[in-house]
Order: sequence, then structure tokens, then C-alpha cells
Amino acid sequence: MAWTLARRALAPRCFARSAHFVSLIDTAHPGDTSALLRWLDDNKAARPRCVLGKTEGNGCVNDFTRGYASHVVDQALGNRKSDASIIMSGGTEGVLTPHLLVFATDDEHVQPAPPEHEERLTIGVARSREIAPHEIGRTAQVLATHEAVLAACGDAGLAPSDAAFVQIKCPLLTPERVNASAEPCTTSDSYYSMALSRGASSIGVALATGELTAPAQGDSLDALLAAQDFRSFSAVASASAGVELMHAEVLVLGNRKGASSALRAAHCTMDDAIDAPSVYRMLAAHGLPVEHGQLAPEARRRVKAVLAKADPAPTVRGERTTMCSDSDLNATRHSRAAVGGLLGGIFGTTRLYVSGGAEHQGPAGGGPVCVLYEA
Amino acid sequence: MAWTLARRALAPRCFARSAHFVSLIDTAHPGDTSALLRWLDDNKAARPRCVLGKTEGNGCVNDFTRGYASHVVDQALGNRKSDASIIMSGGTEGVLTPHLLVFATDDEHVQPAPPEHEERLTIGVARSREIAPHEIGRTAQVLATHEAVLAACGDAGLAPSDAAFVQIKCPLLTPERVNASAEPCTTSDSYYSMALSRGASSIGVALATGELTAPAQGDSLDALLAAQDFRSFSAVASASAGVELMHAEVLVLGNRKGASSALRAAHCTMDDAIDAPSVYRMLAAHGLPVEHGQLAPEARRRVKAVLAKADPAPTVRGERTTMCSDSDLNATRHSRAAVGGLLGGIFGTTRLYVSGGAEHQGPAGGGPVCVLYEA
Amino acid sequence: MAWTLARRALAPRCFARSAHFVSLIDTAHPGDTSALLRWLDDNKAARPRCVLGKTEGNGCVNDFTRGYASHVVDQALGNRKSDASIIMSGGTEGVLTPHLLVFATDDEHVQPAPPEHEERLTIGVARSREIAPHEIGRTAQVLATHEAVLAACGDAGLAPSDAAFVQIKCPLLTPERVNASAEPCTTSDSYYSMALSRGASSIGVALATGELTAPAQGDSLDALLAAQDFRSFSAVASASAGVELMHAEVLVLGNRKGASSALRAAHCTMDDAIDAPSVYRMLAAHGLPVEHGQLAPEARRRVKAVLAKADPAPTVRGERTTMCSDSDLNATRHSRAAVGGLLGGIFGTTRLYVSGGAEHQGPAGGGPVCVLYEA
Amino acid sequence: MAWTLARRALAPRCFARSAHFVSLIDTAHPGDTSALLRWLDDNKAARPRCVLGKTEGNGCVNDFTRGYASHVVDQALGNRKSDASIIMSGGTEGVLTPHLLVFATDDEHVQPAPPEHEERLTIGVARSREIAPHEIGRTAQVLATHEAVLAACGDAGLAPSDAAFVQIKCPLLTPERVNASAEPCTTSDSYYSMALSRGASSIGVALATGELTAPAQGDSLDALLAAQDFRSFSAVASASAGVELMHAEVLVLGNRKGASSALRAAHCTMDDAIDAPSVYRMLAAHGLPVEHGQLAPEARRRVKAVLAKADPAPTVRGERTTMCSDSDLNATRHSRAAVGGLLGGIFGTTRLYVSGGAEHQGPAGGGPVCVLYEA
Repeated sequence: MAWTLARRALAPRCFARSAHFVSLIDTAHPGDTSALLRWLDDNKAARPRCVLGKTEGNGCVNDFTRGYASHVVDQALGNRKSDASIIMSGGTEGVLTPHLLVFATDDEHVQPAPPEHEERLTIGVARSREIAPHEIGRTAQVLATHEAVLAACGDAGLAPSDAAFVQIKCPLLTPERVNASAEPCTTSDSYYSMALSRGASSIGVALATGELTAPAQGDSLDALLAAQDFRSFSAVASASAGVELMHAEVLVLGNRKGASSALRAAHCTMDDAIDAPSVYRMLAAHGLPVEHGQLAPEARRRVKAVLAKADPAPTVRGERTTMCSDSDLNATRHSRAAVGGLLGGIFGTTRLYVSGGAEHQGPAGGGPVCVLYEA
Repeated sequence: MAWTLARRALAPRCFARSAHFVSLIDTAHPGDTSALLRWLDDNKAARPRCVLGKTEGNGCVNDFTRGYASHVVDQALGNRKSDASIIMSGGTEGVLTPHLLVFATDDEHVQPAPPEHEERLTIGVARSREIAPHEIGRTAQVLATHEAVLAACGDAGLAPSDAAFVQIKCPLLTPERVNASAEPCTTSDSYYSMALSRGASSIGVALATGELTAPAQGDSLDALLAAQDFRSFSAVASASAGVELMHAEVLVLGNRKGASSALRAAHCTMDDAIDAPSVYRMLAAHGLPVEHGQLAPEARRRVKAVLAKADPAPTVRGERTTMCSDSDLNATRHSRAAVGGLLGGIFGTTRLYVSGGAEHQGPAGGGPVCVLYEA
Repeated sequence: MAWTLARRALAPRCFARSAHFVSLIDTAHPGDTSALLRWLDDNKAARPRCVLGKTEGNGCVNDFTRGYASHVVDQALGNRKSDASIIMSGGTEGVLTPHLLVFATDDEHVQPAPPEHEERLTIGVARSREIAPHEIGRTAQVLATHEAVLAACGDAGLAPSDAAFVQIKCPLLTPERVNASAEPCTTSDSYYSMALSRGASSIGVALATGELTAPAQGDSLDALLAAQDFRSFSAVASASAGVELMHAEVLVLGNRKGASSALRAAHCTMDDAIDAPSVYRMLAAHGLPVEHGQLAPEARRRVKAVLAKADPAPTVRGERTTMCSDSDLNATRHSRAAVGGLLGGIFGTTRLYVSGGAEHQGPAGGGPVCVLYEA
Repeated sequence: MAWTLARRALAPRCFARSAHFVSLIDTAHPGDTSALLRWLDDNKAARPRCVLGKTEGNGCVNDFTRGYASHVVDQALGNRKSDASIIMSGGTEGVLTPHLLVFATDDEHVQPAPPEHEERLTIGVARSREIAPHEIGRTAQVLATHEAVLAACGDAGLAPSDAAFVQIKCPLLTPERVNASAEPCTTSDSYYSMALSRGASSIGVALATGELTAPAQGDSLDALLAAQDFRSFSAVASASAGVELMHAEVLVLGNRKGASSALRAAHCTMDDAIDAPSVYRMLAAHGLPVEHGQLAPEARRRVKAVLAKADPAPTVRGERTTMCSDSDLNATRHSRAAVGGLLGGIFGTTRLYVSGGAEHQGPAGGGPVCVLYEA
């Protein structure tokens, strides 16, 4: 591709005394914040930067568990919300356990400074401008997301190319939004608009990280996006669409030398829905031991969060699946359940953030995986 | 338990020159028998004993893909059907690939006799008497199944205690059957009747294999079955209910010294839906090598069939799942998808027979796994 | 039946200057209270007694749109909530439009007093004690509901036998509640517990209205409830189960001579899901004109609310339906869609409150209908 | 529109001694032909021209009940199939009863000749050429269907402008078909391809009946079809897509003076999903009496078949529905259930042929209705 982008000069902010950490919080139902309220009480000095949740709806158009959970989490955070992002991803098919991940910093209870040369976790968040309905799935959404990802990297003090996982929450189209739009929208099919929105967001990530070079001023990516050619992708993008917002929320995770955190991020991409070897190789590279194919108990205690994308595909290694022609059960529900089962077997837990529909997010049929663990 | 059963004297038949084998056949849809017809043409000397299929319906009450596939397979077999069982199990959620497994014997093309002491695969089938609607989920169904399992073991020349996998296809209740029944049925809920029928069938297997001792003459198992206490189970039973029959079809697989087959059966039970270690240990015990958590390519070629049961559970290792409270998507669909994803990661293929709802089939929340491989 | 109940002396309160009315409020999604907030602003003197809503979830176990809407309506009412009930019923299948009905009284803007002998609408609400999980579907729930219905009638100044529609919101069982219960619950099947809870609530209504006579002290209704014999019913009960509460909320509607309201209630029961004639006869009896089978435009403006129950049935007039054997789509969803279509054709609007699952609520397969219209 | 078509000269064949009739046949499940076999035995002189069925699948992409029923009906007809069409439409949501309609002629048992001037039912069938995957939803499909409709009218001896109901069964796209197609297809979304295929088929009907004028040689309708502008429609088209064929099957019904039949066709269009008045006006015009809003018992006995299309719409008379944004339940399932409920109330029966998705079939949101009754 011929696109180039003058990368903006990023002046990494000093985070020397800021401990970055993540907490996993269980929920009894989408409206349950009792454990989150206890966490806030127990962590008075912590500053939540993002609450990323898996809620138990269908993960598709009429999944109101995302909006419900967003609403109650917002209220629970109260005056400690500040600029924190709230991102909910629906769908806990199969063995997946609904839960919240609180990404936070704590200036008071900083970790003992890690050795200078050691890479540790850093967290950044940002928010894009409002995205108009007719912009969804088009160049305008890509560029708005691109800007927001760069801002989140700046917030994290991270060179964009060092991002390990970029989580985006992006909008979708409803019949009402399509009808109310002054300009024609890409589609009137709500479920399909989720795919287009996730795709445009992920291309925005790839531009920010430098995985793809940006289009020249005035050039359009619309054709690329409409073509649904998933050979162009970001290996670290994870996008989830929801009816409950019209902008993009961005969370960036990555390792930075000297960052003040007890944690480190490992990441890889699965090449297809049964690509366990890529995950095992990542675990080996990070010294996380496996016994009989499952994370050893000691390593299981060190792993604080597992984040992954699952991508529907009509065939896996040439063999037919029924995911993409099932009118009772949407394709993303099939794929979340399957990848959740695979990762459950590897990590020995069902508290996994697995989000479905990985357009331009890792290879087609596969997707990115990120693990946050105690270094 | 105090039940005892006078075990019938089984006179193992001589199978010295009969090669037992299995073929995996793809289908393009539930009515597709084109590949099966080619197989029949290519294997003129083979005698099909059982066609076991995974079809792409919901696997629940109104899954007519099972009846459709049974109907066309029956027609395709034509005059070579003889006493062959046709067993269809619905549900290919997640990555699972619809397919047929043909279990067959071939007296002409026998394998070179294996060393006397080596255990090899043997196959047996049988059919129970008709089971009345009011018998479903009760002692009468247990005993009818028990008889049929013993008959299938006799057919295989296998001591019942050596069974590695016992596949049952059993009936279910519909509103019409409940209304037409002269005597009261256990339930009027069709979906629940599937669980009761699978449970009674599996207790029948456990009596036959000796895993449980049988009730004295006249004693009833009704209370045990109604109590849904899944601590009593068979580690080798796999039952699937369907609207398309009112008796039980039984397929028994096991290893017998001197059996004429290139194949051997490995089996284990998973303790819960993410119990990958039990599967890895089974593979290791049978010398099937794994690389980066996935069956090595050479071993993948040797594995001819993978059969497993998946069992829904409201919690896995103490963590909440949403399988059992999802009114859009039945619990068995969740569990098949998850276990299919896990096994897909281990075996490197999606052509897996995973059947959902494992009442009294392996530990609660887990289930039996069986692998047929070239010795 | 031999049950008798010493009917408590009800001292109807004086409502002479209190206008009872209902407003229909649209929602854009389950979390939308923008129109409700405008209503509160426009009706400053009104005292909301009950907000009854139709939300767009599946209406079954994991329908969190009910909890979401209840939560935001509670917040929107703020300090005007007082003792108002909030009752949400999920499921807007087919043509049904999600909406809220606000039942309110207004002491300031009273209607010109109607002629003494004219019957007009009166509204009452009450709340039962907490119902324990093991009480659901049993005598204890019946009696607790019975008490609450009598209290609501007292609140409305209505003789219980004059009730035109009694709306109950009742609890259901989840796996968590069943596991946590000290005493055994009636079922571990959440969906089935909804039916049992609705059934027990409705028998409670029938005892209050005198349609059934109550059991003697210490006698149990458990057998009747477990038998699912729907020949005993209340013609005015409408019960809806939800995960979001553990007590019963009760709303009573009825006509009382001299009540201060512009509205009147008409009611009937449909004998089955296609019993349009009963509805037409009710409209004729109340002088609501029909043109070409649909409410005439002038009458359409007078009708302020339509409330009905829909009941799944495996056969309608001897002809088979697939409602009760559909594993993809719960029976109540089928029935709401069908009855909503029929009532939409009659009333010429889709803003209809149709709730599914009418156990002991009108004849089996049918259900009660209530229309509030300007007298 | 500027399209014109040189209408071919149709030489109506002589049907003087051929009685046209229809029989309604119940099924216990999609594979059940027991009642059809009895009918064949009881009607030895009848020549089946079309078997049109409602089967109990989801009516969407993976509805294999259509293929299953087509397969067994084909076998049941055996050597009496001749050129008979077999058309299955999936989806019996709500109160709808699965059933088969056999359209047949009988030269032996002809009706007493009706008075010369009386219009009576005539039946015609035809089959289009194979339609390639890339032709679906495009001009090529329109023209192929157009030809087949003219042929069916010729078969019926009917001027195309006198058609009362034109039933089409048309193909859809699957991922496999899209991948295998040499030329690009209109969409890779299977569910959407059903809408496009129904739409193109219906425009084909409108060209044949003269409701629309045909394009000049070489002109393309592709833009019209892609625009999804449903203001162009046929008031008598009814199209249903299915995975089980790649051509179009056509059944034409209409009244012809002097036709030898005891039956007559009445037809109208509903303007939206709750347009009961149009149906009542049609009944009145044909002298079919209604009592309390429901067909009177005597008229109910005369009505032999009711055929209708249901069309999903995000709003009905300006009020929001959730049909088009429900990711658990496809829009056509919602609409069939609702229209089935409305027609059930009017006709007093649930044995109704209601097919979902009425693109270019009657007004948007509405659809054609046809009733066959004893004159």
C-alpha cells in the first residue's frame, strides 16, 4: 500500500512513580457492581483508567447488557470516574465467565522500581470525536480512530509500535440511525454494521502502530473497507461494537522499559480458531510453565488477565463449520464459545475476555491474544 | 449401592479374520450422502455396522436434521444396511464440522494379524426393544438399555468391562407422545425429557460394564434417576436423544487382544469442560506425540476419530458460566461449542464428534473422550 | 374445591377527588427514560402509582432488559417514586412496540365528577413480603400474593370481586438461588420456575377475587400447583416473572361507581390464541365501534391502554402448533407474537401490553384482556 | 418506469373437463408423508401439479426442514410426480400449523360445469432455467423468473394480468456457493441473499403480470434491485427462498371464466402487518360472512386454503417494532408470527400458509393475501 503518514512527535510523559495494574472483578449479573464497589473501597488511592467488561448478552445488535453494565459502572465509579473509559463487550458463550477488568494506576502504592532495562506494563486511554452514522465503516472512522489511538499511546507514554493490545469500543448502525442520517450509510443491516465498524476501527489501529502506512491526504480507504479483504490487519487491535455510544473509546496496553508496574504484557496472534500452538509458544517465550497442556498452578496465580479476539470462519483448515450459515445463532457467538473453550483448556480458568468478530484484527479466522502477568 | 445382577455368560464370537475399521466422511448438508455413496462404492467388501453422524441442527427437541440424515443414510446404504445402526447426534456449534463416522468390518481385506498380545479395536452393535413414552427416564429404560449393551458387547466379542466407548441413541418425549401415553410420563417438558432419557441410558451402560451393580429383582431406580444425582456415572457412556426413534441403538467400541484391526481405542474422562490435562495424559499414555500443545502432524494422520461428550454446568471450577440460564441458546449448545474448541486446539482438527448433555456420562460437568488411532 | 377463606372486611377509602389515569410513554431502548422525564415535568401534580413496561428482551430467564428498565425508571422517578410499583415484562415479539404505561393519580386536576351511578377506573398497588426461593410455586407464594392483592384492592377502594385486571410481577429461580436455598426448591429449571411462579401468583389472585375459595388453615395447594391443572384459573390475573425481584408487586385495576376518572376498564378472556370474537364482543358491549374489523379511528383515540396475556399451547382448536417443541425460540415468545398480531389487527395499533405465559390466568391456551378507554 | 416488454402471445389451453382443486394435508413433522400417501390413495385419478408446504424450521438459511420435506414428498409422489412442483416454505412461528397444500387437477371427477360467466380457479406451474449464484438478486434472475411465470400462466390458460397469486420458490447464496462462483455475487451474507432473491423473483412476476413494464433489451434492473426501493412491487407475488434448489419453481393461481373447478380465488394486499380491514373487505366482496370478527362456521368450511406474505418492518404506523434489530430472532420469524396471529383471528384456523419476507411483494411492510374457497 502506498499510504504514508507523517507520524506525530510523541513526547512520552513521565510515569516513574505510577504503578499500572489490573484487577479482575466478578459480577452476578449485568447490573451488579457490588464487587466493584468493594474494590473501590479497598483501593482508595487507585485511579481507574478503564473498566473493560464481558457481559452476558448476545454480543450483537440488541445486546442491552452492555448499556446496562456501562450505566451502573458509571454510577459506581461516581466522582472517581474522571476520564476513565468504560468498555463493555457482550457475549459469554460456552464456558466464559462474565467479569470486569479494572485497569488502574496508583501513585501512592507504587511498586519497587523494576530494574531499568525491564519492560513493564503501561496503560493509556483516549476517546475519539463523535462518529456520524454515515462515517461508520468508512475512511472518516478510520482516521478518527487513528487519532484516538495515538492519543492513548501518548497517555501511556508508549511508542505506538510497542502497543501489545489496543482495545476499541466503537458504534454501530440501527434502523433509526440509518433513517435519521442525512447522508447515505454503508449498510442498513445492523449486524453487518458491527463488522464494518470493527473493521474500520482496526485499520485505524494499524495506521497508528505503523503496521499499515496511512493514505495520502484526500485518499480514501472506503474501497479497501468495503472489499472486506482481511489480508490487511493489525496484530494488536481488538474492536467491539455497541449500540450504547457514537464515538470510539480506546484502551492501549504495552510494555515500556522502566514502567512502574508489577505486570508485563505477552501477546501473539492465533492464525485460526484452533491455533493453540501460537499461544503455547507465547507462554514459553515468557517463562509461563505449562503442565499437561494447562498453565501450571503457580503460573495460573500470576496471570491477571487474558484478552483475545475470536473470528468466525466458514472453514477452519479447509474443514466446513456452520458458524456463518446459522440463522438461529450469530457467527460471533459460535466463535466466542469455541475460542473460549480452547483458552479455558490452556489457562485453566473461564475468566477470559474473549470478544467476537475480528475483522482486520489478526489474520482472518484468527485474532490477537494478550496476557497480563506478574513479571 | 446394593444392586446385583447375575451377569450373563458371554461367549465371545471369533473375529479372527474380520478387520474392524472406521472411516470419516464429510457432508455438505444433512441430506448429503454423495461422499457416503462413493465410500460404499470404494469399499464393496465392507460391512457397515454403524453410521454415527454429527448433524448441524440445534441438537435439541426440534432438530430435524437428525431425522433427515438418518433417512438419507438409510436409503444410501440400501441393501448393505443389514443390521447396521444409524445414530445421528445434532449440534455442530463453534468450530465443529458436520460429518459421518462409518464403523465397519471387512472379512476380505483383513489386516495382517497383529501380535497375539496386542489389543486392537473391536466393534459391536445392538438394538433395544421399543421403549414406551412412560418408560423414558425410568427403570424400564435402564434395563432395556442394559440388555442391549450386553448384546452389543457380545456382538463385539468384548467383555463388557473392557468397553472403551458405548454410544447410545435414545428416544425423547414430545407433547404428542405425552398426551397419547396411557400411563403418566416423567415430564411434559421435551427438552428435559432428553436429559432424563440420556441419564437412564447411561445408568444402563454402567450396569452392563459393571461400573454400577444392578438392582435386585423388582427394585426401582426411579428415585435415583429423578434425583438427578450425577455422582453415579459410567465413564464410557455417551448418549444422545432424538425424536426420530422410540428404541435404543447401541454401538460399543473396545480393545480386544488379537482383534483384527489396524486401530486401537484410547479413552479417558474430562473432569470438567476445561480439563485438557486428562486428554493430554491419555495421548501421552498411548504414545501420540504433541507439539506446542497440539497433536503432531504425524500423529494427526494416525487419529481416525475423536468422540466426546460435553456437559453444561452453571459453574466451572467455581466460576460462573451462563450456559444454564440462557433462554436464547440451550445449555447443550453452549457446552458442545466450548468442548469442541478445546478439543480442536488439542487435535488440530474440527472433525470431532462432540455430543452435548452428559448426565451420568462421566463426572458432572465433564464427560468421556475416546480416540481411535492407528496402532 | 373445599377451601374457604374468611374474606377480610375492606373499608374502601374515599377517592372522591382523586383522578385516576394512565399515560402511554414510548422508549427508544430499555435504558431510555427521556419521554418519561418529560412526562414527569408535564405532570407535576401527578402521583405515579405504577410504571408497567414492555421491554424488548426475550422475556425469559436471562432477560436483563427488565432489570435495566426498572433501574432507570426508578432513578427517573426520583423522589416522586414514593410507593409506586415498577413492573417490567419482557418480550415484544412480532409487531409489539416497547413502551411504558404510567398509572397515576392526580388530586389537583380532578375530572369533573362523573354521574354517581357511572363506573370509572380506580387504581391500587401493593407489595408482598419477600418470597423465599423454596416458596416459589408453592402454597406460601399463593398466600403471600393473596394478601398483597387484597391490600392493593383496599388501596384502590375496590371490592376484590370487582377487579378487572390484576397485574403481578413475581420472582423466578436461578441456579444460584436454587443452590443457595436451605430448603429444596420446586425445580432447578429456571425457565420452568417462571411458569410455576406465575401460576402460584395467579391462584393467589383467584383466592382474593373469590374466583376460587381458599384452603382451610394448614391445607396445602402444592399438589394443585404441581399438577399444572389449568382448569382452575383467575379471569383477571396477569403475572409476569423476572429475575430482578424476590417479592411480588401488585397492580389492581377496576371500575368503581363514582370514582374520579375519565377512564373505564373493559375486560374479557380469550378462550384460545385466535379467539377474536371474545374481544369484539367486549368492544361492542362497551360501545367501542369497529370498522372493517378494526377499531374505528375515533374509538382508537379513546383507547388509552390494552393489556393482555398470551398462553402457549401445543394445539389450537385441535390443530398442531410448534410453540411448545421449539428449542430455538421459547414458547412464550411464540405466543406473545401471535396474540400481538391479532390484537394489533383489532385495535389498529402496536402499542399493546402483551405478556406471555398465562398459567392459571384465563383458560388454558387463552388469557385475560383489559382495555382502558375514555368513558 | 420506461421499460416495455413485447408480451408474448399466449394460447390458453383448453381445460374444459379438468377440475382444479386443492387439498390441505397435515404433517406430524417435516418427514411425515403418511397423510399425503393416504390422499394419493384416495385420489387415484388426481394429477398433483404442485405441493406447497409450510415446514417448521426457522425459514432462514440453515432451515433443512424444507429440503427434508421436499425429499420425502418427492418420494411419496413417486411416479405420480410427473411435472409437479414441490415448494416448501419454512417457518411456523406463533400459532401457525405445519401443513401441505396439494394443488391438483382431476379429469375424471370433473365438477358439474359452472355457469359460463362464472369465474373459477385454474392452476398452472412451470420451472425456470438454472440460476447461477452471481445472477441471484440481479436482472438475469428477474428475466428467468419472468419467463417461467409466463409459462405457468400459459399452463393455467390464464391471461397473466388475471393472476391472483404467484408463488415462487427461488434459490439463495451460501458461503460455499459464493466461493465457488466464477463471477462476483451480490452479497456474501446468506440471509441477505434470501431477500435479494425474493425481490428479483417478485419483480419478475410484476413484469409478467404487467404491473411493471419490462426493461428494453440490454437495460439492467440491477440498480433498482440493489436500491431496495420497495415502492415497485407486484400485488400477487409470493416468493420464498431455499437452499435446496438453484432454479425457480412457479405456481400460478387465478380465476378464469368457465374453468372447471368448485373453487374460486379471492385476493387482496395488506398495507401493513396490522391491516385487517383489507382482509375483511375482501371477505365481504366475495360473500364470505364474518361473525364477531371471525369467519362464520359455514364460511370456515368453504375456505380451503389461505396464503399470505408477511413483511418485517422497523416501524408499523409510525410505532417502533424490534423485528429488524433482534439478533436472536430473525425479522422474518417475527413477521410470520404476527401476521399468522392476525389471520388466525380472522379465519378461525391456524392452518395458514404465511411466508415471511415480502420484498417487492405487496406494499413494503405489508403483503398479498389469497383465499381459495368453494364458490
